[in-house]
Amino acid sequence: MDLIKVSSQSRTASVAGAIAGSVRANGRVEIQTIGAGSLNQAMKALVLARGYLKDDGFDVVYIPEFVDLDFDGRLVTAIKIIVEPR
Amino acid sequence: MDLIKVSSQSRTASVAGAIAGSVRANGRVEIQTIGAGSLNQAMKALVLARGYLKDDGFDVVYIPEFVDLDFDGRLVTAIKIIVEPR
Repeated sequence: MDLIKVSSQSRTASVAGAIAGSVRANGRVEIQTIGAGSLNQAMKALVLARGYLKDDGFDVVYIPEFVDLDFDGRLVTAIKIIVEPR
Repeated sequence: MDLIKVSSQSRTASVAGAIAGSVRANGRVEIQTIGAGSLNQAMKALVLARGYLKDDGFDVVYIPEFVDLDFDGRLVTAIKIIVEPR
């Protein structure tokens, strides 16, 4: 499955396009966010992506999970959002 | 349908309990967030609530939408997250 990493600087329209493209190709995709700014951009992109995909007949839903990431020994709790068909 | 408003100061465990309680009672609930801090608390609560509900046999998914709110003439775009059975 594709993994799209979103930062607080990511452009929502670009991320939304990448999410929609991955779902069209593979039916699902995972979004990785670290921190409130990153999550905020990701959620805006997910609202947009859901609209794009609805126009193509895809009805997607979102499932968030905590993920522990290891950055050179520094443990960070991130939020991963799984995009799946309903 | 219940509407739960989450602020950046909301305690995630309390919000998660409220979400799980509403879903058990009504099958669904809506979460209103305004800004990145509020959304961050809501998403952490939604991860926790999904775990609580899974233990009770509820498999819930999340659908985010933009909502325009009017605060005394000042228009604010918020993110509403709909919690539904899969």
